[in-house]
Amino acid sequence: MALTFVGLGLGVPPHLTLEALEVIRSADRLILDSYTSIIPDALIQFIKREAGDRLKIAERSLLEERSGEILEEASRREVAILVPGDPFIATTHQSLKTEALKRNVKVRVVHGLSIFTAAISASGLHIYKFGRTATIPKTSDVKLVSQPYNVLAENLSRGLHTLLLLDTAEGGVSVGEALNLLLSAEEEFGKGVVRRDSLVIALSRVGYDDSRIVAGSISSIADLNPQQPPHTLIFPGELHFTEKEAMKTYTIDAELVERYTPPNYVKERVERYVGKCRRVIDMVIEQKAADKEFTSYVEAYVEDSWRFMMAGDYTNALLAIGYAEGLLDALKLLGRARFEW
Amino acid sequence: MALTFVGLGLGVPPHLTLEALEVIRSADRLILDSYTSIIPDALIQFIKREAGDRLKIAERSLLEERSGEILEEASRREVAILVPGDPFIATTHQSLKTEALKRNVKVRVVHGLSIFTAAISASGLHIYKFGRTATIPKTSDVKLVSQPYNVLAENLSRGLHTLLLLDTAEGGVSVGEALNLLLSAEEEFGKGVVRRDSLVIALSRVGYDDSRIVAGSISSIADLNPQQPPHTLIFPGELHFTEKEAMKTYTIDAELVERYTPPNYVKERVERYVGKCRRVIDMVIEQKAADKEFTSYVEAYVEDSWRFMMAGDYTNALLAIGYAEGLLDALKLLGRARFEW
Repeated sequence: MALTFVGLGLGVPPHLTLEALEVIRSADRLILDSYTSIIPDALIQFIKREAGDRLKIAERSLLEERSGEILEEASRREVAILVPGDPFIATTHQSLKTEALKRNVKVRVVHGLSIFTAAISASGLHIYKFGRTATIPKTSDVKLVSQPYNVLAENLSRGLHTLLLLDTAEGGVSVGEALNLLLSAEEEFGKGVVRRDSLVIALSRVGYDDSRIVAGSISSIADLNPQQPPHTLIFPGELHFTEKEAMKTYTIDAELVERYTPPNYVKERVERYVGKCRRVIDMVIEQKAADKEFTSYVEAYVEDSWRFMMAGDYTNALLAIGYAEGLLDALKLLGRARFEW
Repeated sequence: MALTFVGLGLGVPPHLTLEALEVIRSADRLILDSYTSIIPDALIQFIKREAGDRLKIAERSLLEERSGEILEEASRREVAILVPGDPFIATTHQSLKTEALKRNVKVRVVHGLSIFTAAISASGLHIYKFGRTATIPKTSDVKLVSQPYNVLAENLSRGLHTLLLLDTAEGGVSVGEALNLLLSAEEEFGKGVVRRDSLVIALSRVGYDDSRIVAGSISSIADLNPQQPPHTLIFPGELHFTEKEAMKTYTIDAELVERYTPPNYVKERVERYVGKCRRVIDMVIEQKAADKEFTSYVEAYVEDSWRFMMAGDYTNALLAIGYAEGLLDALKLLGRARFEW
């Protein structure tokens, strides 16, 4: 008597763990979640052969609205919920687990292969250098792409890699569509992080026999013939030379990989402001708008800002450069200096 | 003729995928990497039984210094490298893969369960809200903990969760040791993000039959009797109510979970500066040190900073509050106002 959540892995029978197969063979009732992700027919047929009429293909209503029935059954018999990937990525299953534990139904978890680590592993990039993950939704409304766009911009500004999953709902988002959505988001939100010549890694069908990985500029990748989903994108941050070596085994543009440095909208902004402040300090000195003590003081903050930026301390870099600008602008507001930024 | 990298999963035979088992049964030569991670004896025995004398337990030298031999053999026969977890988390194996591809040796990857997703899945926290991952090293030098400490502080300031792996080298780092190292790092680096009453999730032996998960304050968790490794820590960021519900099924302090808000050193700093600026503006007005236009202008930036902060736009929040401070400090430097921050 238990409710077992079984991760099915990336979509082909060989991805099942021995533990998953054992549960599929022995549970009294198997419920296959077929709506949170794409499950290839070959996997469904494999499970059907092993499970026979103990298998039920679940629609949303069964898992969400009729969870009471499932929990009641699990208090009497061995019930297993079969879920693509690892079981608790989708919140639906987590709620069911929480509910089961509250009702003292025994819960067991059989972990499965997940695209999160498999895609990172396939890319050859270091997992410790990945920032937050996001999903590109199926949409024509660029506003809905602001979240993944901002996650990407944020990660890039820290030199981190970004894994972007592509929505599988309603036929799914292709690599080309996803890249075009990000280019539109760039036009709309303008942080300067997604350009036609930006480096991107496209992975399709990770873990399948026909999996494919390619790296190149957005424009070259968007034009490639799309394979069947699932698709995944990785935007690299700062690359270690071993990561570049790995990427060179699958890129269509080795030169782009070699000379790559990730765009950094925070650094670019601080850099721009540092340049402006230096120029304005010269004008203030020329106009004799403040004494040497004042201008040296401002100068010190400008140089500090740049040093903080180089050390990756964005908080202090931004505070210092804002402070320096304020000091200089006060001279203008008080009518002591004339300049434009 | 191929070099197959096989992920073994989290350390017990039932975690092997059907694909991994098939390779173990059929490859001409199997090389087990026993040094990048802990491999329990039961798993080694299982593989030995399946592989017999085709199995070789690798020391570091074999995989790193004698990779030429391995690649040469893989150009003639089926050679498999067996690796705990998913194969390409450790850079050693990635280099070998890169080298194989360069020499036109066919490479195949058999993905395995990884602690990265299994731990997140077990915690019930949403994978999309995890920031960068870090490792707590085996050390008594607090300087070596600055990297994971800063990753944690950074993630918390964005409301993100943090997965911290504990080093398994030299007997490994226990949960208690790791938490004490982080408390020492807090004393040293002082961002105010790790306190004895901070909420933390400790996971041990994820995926094993005796896996355990518990959440509570650092001081209560550090005192628990340690299980055998591997251990993992998760520091929660902002919690969705479904995440709180999940955590309540395993916490020893439901009240701590319920009222939890993550520490945010950037927000706290902006908040402090906003307070100071408001106070100084009042003094400037009182001292008639600047006209209404000037003080209203500064005020607008102070309020903007707070609005940016609330919207999660740290870049503009920090720039605006730094700018406001600069404007006010100029009045002081020019001898027009007297105040202390």
